[in-house]
Amino acid sequence: MAFQSPSSSTSFTPTPSPTNCCFHPCTKKFSSLRFKPNKRNITRSAVSIEKEIPETERPITFLRESEGADVRARFEKMIRDAQDSVCAAIEAADKGGKFKEDVWSRPGGGGGISRVLQDGAVWEKAGVNVSVVYGVMPPEAYRAAKAAPADQKPGPVPFFAAGISSVLHPKNPFAPTLHFNYRYFETDAPQDVPGAPRQWWFGGGTDLTPAYIFDEDVKHFHSTQKKACDKFDPTFYPRFKKWCDDYFYIKHRGERRGLGGIFFDDLNDYDQEMLLSFATECANSVVPAYIPIIEKRKDTPFTDHHKAWQQLRRGRYVEFNLVYDRGTTFGLKTGGRIESILVSLPLSARWEYDHKPEVGSEEWKLLDACINPKEWI
Amino acid sequence: MAFQSPSSSTSFTPTPSPTNCCFHPCTKKFSSLRFKPNKRNITRSAVSIEKEIPETERPITFLRESEGADVRARFEKMIRDAQDSVCAAIEAADKGGKFKEDVWSRPGGGGGISRVLQDGAVWEKAGVNVSVVYGVMPPEAYRAAKAAPADQKPGPVPFFAAGISSVLHPKNPFAPTLHFNYRYFETDAPQDVPGAPRQWWFGGGTDLTPAYIFDEDVKHFHSTQKKACDKFDPTFYPRFKKWCDDYFYIKHRGERRGLGGIFFDDLNDYDQEMLLSFATECANSVVPAYIPIIEKRKDTPFTDHHKAWQQLRRGRYVEFNLVYDRGTTFGLKTGGRIESILVSLPLSARWEYDHKPEVGSEEWKLLDACINPKEWI
Repeated sequence: MAFQSPSSSTSFTPTPSPTNCCFHPCTKKFSSLRFKPNKRNITRSAVSIEKEIPETERPITFLRESEGADVRARFEKMIRDAQDSVCAAIEAADKGGKFKEDVWSRPGGGGGISRVLQDGAVWEKAGVNVSVVYGVMPPEAYRAAKAAPADQKPGPVPFFAAGISSVLHPKNPFAPTLHFNYRYFETDAPQDVPGAPRQWWFGGGTDLTPAYIFDEDVKHFHSTQKKACDKFDPTFYPRFKKWCDDYFYIKHRGERRGLGGIFFDDLNDYDQEMLLSFATECANSVVPAYIPIIEKRKDTPFTDHHKAWQQLRRGRYVEFNLVYDRGTTFGLKTGGRIESILVSLPLSARWEYDHKPEVGSEEWKLLDACINPKEWI
Repeated sequence: MAFQSPSSSTSFTPTPSPTNCCFHPCTKKFSSLRFKPNKRNITRSAVSIEKEIPETERPITFLRESEGADVRARFEKMIRDAQDSVCAAIEAADKGGKFKEDVWSRPGGGGGISRVLQDGAVWEKAGVNVSVVYGVMPPEAYRAAKAAPADQKPGPVPFFAAGISSVLHPKNPFAPTLHFNYRYFETDAPQDVPGAPRQWWFGGGTDLTPAYIFDEDVKHFHSTQKKACDKFDPTFYPRFKKWCDDYFYIKHRGERRGLGGIFFDDLNDYDQEMLLSFATECANSVVPAYIPIIEKRKDTPFTDHHKAWQQLRRGRYVEFNLVYDRGTTFGLKTGGRIESILVSLPLSARWEYDHKPEVGSEEWKLLDACINPKEWI
């Protein structure tokens, strides 16, 4: 089945994670897997556990030499362009902070560019990362391999994954946090399962996490997502809006971490070119969806009360990312460059015992919208 | 085997958790288990999923009527006395903050008392909780049931658990955080596995998490733990000190959350009376181990630099508790009173991208001791 809801995912998800994976960690997601490589995979299997090497310059491509004009190359170009344009827009709006860049590669192919702006004028922490990963995954994780007869055990499946992932935490409690992530995934056809096809899919999403609701902001944000979706399929926005509400659910709180947006995963039941264009459109919608809201809210006067509430909501962000987010939890458990995984965490967060906003207050309105997702447009 | 290291534990641990469980959640730890009750357990099984009910007064006991002078009753008395004496010592040292108390019970037996002091003069957040739980656990979790023949499937096992758990986070960055937890666990003999015995065990520990090392403080703390241990068995301190270093390990950081202390679990290969006395001695050692350090450090002048480092270490505390702590993670996933589970989190925490203390600095010394556990005495 091509369309799979997050809740029905297996514990091993062979796509890069929806949030933090492409802050490198999709690398680690597969890098510490342990199984016997078959003949063909022995090199790649070794590659997949190599440590990353810092680079002084950005390479033209992180792809292996043989790969040129295909979807992999076009997707890599798209996410690197998106990283440049989002970072340029952030720096322009911040009017002070500059991104610090870390470039890294792996000898067998793949690598990434991490950019972090910390303690800027507008953002307290903003990370925008791209990565390209070659790895192998256990056959159980490869859906197409299910076609194999029961007595035929498929070997590990080489895969390619590329993605952009970003979390932007502003200082002003009236300016919302934004997260987005777009990724492309491909497997080789398994060598030892006749007839099992090569597989590919897209995933991603963009979601907004304010501490206070300004209806016009949330409407603008969701409208921009809908506009991007509607260019491709009128069913996309309602479907991916709901998927987003379902995914970013903090189960132990009974509330979402924010006000959603769009989210999709394992998408391959459309034309590949169409989905590449769709992911591109979504990535290009980040700046127009977000920056106008920041421009409006970044200088709004606020009190300690507002700041404390923002900090409590940041605590929820931490809870979601450390407890539920598939990329983060898998990344943490399988090892890897921890700073890249956890750059998604806010600069600071707060937990008060049994805090309950006054019914009807602005804080209560936000909480209510996180508990009962609304239709914003 | 009676002695079991944390790393060899199964994913379902039939003891209340070492840290936060007895902030109520050992209740929830078992409360949402789903399996078919056998005839005898049907009532208890129903009891185990009841929601807690707030009480206006503390009952004399949370035990069921039939239980009087046995170990259960004496352990409950011990933890409630310990809660009183620790809270009194905290309030006396804080000279300002007062504990807020929440009492709750369950109709079928069991309940708890949660006490939280927030934003005091010395402590920013201090929680001291006791709880008593009646529940049932799946037979897989009951070691003694392993004696059953393969063709005989044992039913769910009723259990009793009681514990005290506490996390104390001071404001001053030179004053350390303390955590302690002591618990007692009993099962009924399984009805449908002839010969499988009734089982009991003790668990617990006390550990220190400073942001800065004062050798004399850490020595005093560990010496007090050793003194308590040595009264019972000279092997206890070295064994439980190492167990503590192993348990509070933040794997993805390659470092411990603090400077350890003692930790033990599943302890039943000693005389039951001896272990009850040992747990009592440990609980009574909390105040003499900790309060003198607080008195010495609570008013030490500090800068923003010191405070920021404390906040970064608090971030590690959050990471350990949300990602690794067995009681917290199980509690979050099985539902329950979330505020009781997460009262262990600090009031505030911080995450800076790629922060590295200068080699040789005081911050570096702390980090080094968290990476390479030391012998303090």
